[in-house]
Amino acid sequence: MRAICLLSDFGLEDHYVGAMHAVCERDAPGAPRLDLGHGVPAGDVWTGCFFVRSTWPHLPEAAVVLGVVDPGVGTARRAVAAAVGDRWLVAPDNGLAAAVGPAERVIQLDAASMGLAVPSATFHGRDLFAPAAARLARGDDPSQLGSECPTDELISCPLPEPTAVRGRLHGVVLHVDRFGNVITNLPASAAGPGTALDCGSTRVRDRAATYGEAPTARPVFMAGSSGLLELAVRDGSAAERLTLKRGDEIVLAPAETM
Amino acid sequence: MRAICLLSDFGLEDHYVGAMHAVCERDAPGAPRLDLGHGVPAGDVWTGCFFVRSTWPHLPEAAVVLGVVDPGVGTARRAVAAAVGDRWLVAPDNGLAAAVGPAERVIQLDAASMGLAVPSATFHGRDLFAPAAARLARGDDPSQLGSECPTDELISCPLPEPTAVRGRLHGVVLHVDRFGNVITNLPASAAGPGTALDCGSTRVRDRAATYGEAPTARPVFMAGSSGLLELAVRDGSAAERLTLKRGDEIVLAPAETM
Amino acid sequence: MRAICLLSDFGLEDHYVGAMHAVCERDAPGAPRLDLGHGVPAGDVWTGCFFVRSTWPHLPEAAVVLGVVDPGVGTARRAVAAAVGDRWLVAPDNGLAAAVGPAERVIQLDAASMGLAVPSATFHGRDLFAPAAARLARGDDPSQLGSECPTDELISCPLPEPTAVRGRLHGVVLHVDRFGNVITNLPASAAGPGTALDCGSTRVRDRAATYGEAPTARPVFMAGSSGLLELAVRDGSAAERLTLKRGDEIVLAPAETM
Repeated sequence: MRAICLLSDFGLEDHYVGAMHAVCERDAPGAPRLDLGHGVPAGDVWTGCFFVRSTWPHLPEAAVVLGVVDPGVGTARRAVAAAVGDRWLVAPDNGLAAAVGPAERVIQLDAASMGLAVPSATFHGRDLFAPAAARLARGDDPSQLGSECPTDELISCPLPEPTAVRGRLHGVVLHVDRFGNVITNLPASAAGPGTALDCGSTRVRDRAATYGEAPTARPVFMAGSSGLLELAVRDGSAAERLTLKRGDEIVLAPAETM
Repeated sequence: MRAICLLSDFGLEDHYVGAMHAVCERDAPGAPRLDLGHGVPAGDVWTGCFFVRSTWPHLPEAAVVLGVVDPGVGTARRAVAAAVGDRWLVAPDNGLAAAVGPAERVIQLDAASMGLAVPSATFHGRDLFAPAAARLARGDDPSQLGSECPTDELISCPLPEPTAVRGRLHGVVLHVDRFGNVITNLPASAAGPGTALDCGSTRVRDRAATYGEAPTARPVFMAGSSGLLELAVRDGSAAERLTLKRGDEIVLAPAETM
Repeated sequence: MRAICLLSDFGLEDHYVGAMHAVCERDAPGAPRLDLGHGVPAGDVWTGCFFVRSTWPHLPEAAVVLGVVDPGVGTARRAVAAAVGDRWLVAPDNGLAAAVGPAERVIQLDAASMGLAVPSATFHGRDLFAPAAARLARGDDPSQLGSECPTDELISCPLPEPTAVRGRLHGVVLHVDRFGNVITNLPASAAGPGTALDCGSTRVRDRAATYGEAPTARPVFMAGSSGLLELAVRDGSAAERLTLKRGDEIVLAPAETM
């Protein structure tokens, strides 16, 4: 059995995540299940992509990711399963299904092909995506999930790449985590000696290797756990200190310039 | 092994849910476990019933639901296992055990019959309900859990049914979810063309098939994922817009009347 | 396969807990996993110890606890696996690894010994602790995790023991739970007839056996589910009523004294 890795914006206050787990266990009894996270803000495909991309390198072999951030549920947006390497990403075609790069195969999910009842209009996570993920986890032939699609027609992942402009690298805040750490899309490998991060009107010059060695109360930048630069304040919130939120611009620049 | 489906009002801040999972795994090693949800408000049997009832149609075959919303823990309220179809619902006899309709068999749980130590006075979820659910999951004879009881003496589920009054169907708000969607107890099948929902002094006339096709910022009603009418506001909270909370009255009426 | 019991201060908003689950499943496919709780406040080793100690007596046989409350991640603090009875506690050596008493064997984790890549500086939960826990769960020889250490050099658990002073037992608040219950470190067995709890300037004289039998709106004390005295207010928060927080002093005294 392949492992099913669940991700959504359903939160854990309601029974929605439970319903998806139930369907996975119902349709693929005994398949390992794990939660990549359900704290994605409502409808926030960007953060969904960030969570999938951040955990992807560490997933079990042949994992099936069941990702449901689906503000367009019930509309004409497609529901797909995308094969990337030995894994599948089952998600709406709203950018989430393209979170980890080019797919080698894309199948548009079809409830009838899977022998399912007509899905509800509002909960495809339970009625379409979870059954599809379970079928992949138990080893069904993927072609039974629906119809093959061109692999190059998936809606693109919204996470931007940094751009180089006259010796500076312009990036953005990808995520602010629970601890107030600010994760950028700037690769840590680009931050050589003598570089600084410009965050709005504030320049952060100090680099630390770990949270523990940062000077108290002053923002630092460091290589985060996904190889991206992040901003941190020891025992505090870098996002609050620097007034940063998702999508804000961050620029990697030589420290001597301003 | 049967799957154990956990539900409680313990929340996820503390270690209480973890203790129940640990006992399930200790007493039924390898049995699949899944969380139906632990975000039930403290002591709120009504919402516990709603979560059980909403997920019940989608549970794995022969599932054991371990439901602990138990404000009367340690008092004379009974702890029971109720058989419904091929499933068991293990819960306090405070309405939760009757969430999904008539039981075909009811057993009053008894720690001594199960060979357990005397339960703590405050955590029967860990000391009585979880061991009982684990024993059912691993296939023990249910009669070893305690004593058989009449099936018609369970305290009733508090979720009300709608009532028809002079061509109008009077219902209530069953639940407000994380997204602010307002789920009623009115069956979607009752809302034919030309009907509207009266919510206090506001009449909602617009029906949508999905969240995505709702006009922005105006409340609509639609068939929810459990076949019940729900109120929604696209990219917003219907509960806030309409000032609705659990238990408030909602009336399905012909749209031309007022 | 041994069961892996995860505990952290990562919360459930981000993808960090998901990444640890993924690594456990990747490195120990099929090993049962369960969450003891991820609601430990950020960096709060004390509460991490409390959760481990509270659930420890109920864990599955030969469980592996993966405990990550690690404000010193990336610094010189050691990462260890500590054997206690037939179980392992995999955690930073910051007090958490000593949460449940003397270890019979301690191994300092070493990524190279485990054949792992150099860990990131900020996420040893994913890169060091989870792989170690998974190796123990799948039955690897513990000596392959790193180097043996003296068992008496672990940093002590921060949870204090009560102290007797002139006929009174001085304790502290160990935890305030979601319901506002105040859990002390005073053993319930010490509270004989005619004793009361002094909480700052308030004396709580009433003892109840259960939440349900407490008089409404007046604080009571009772034997909690771990054999410790706790303060509760029926349908309310004892912590708010008595203005108590973690670490505050609580004194068990004969009721006739003041």
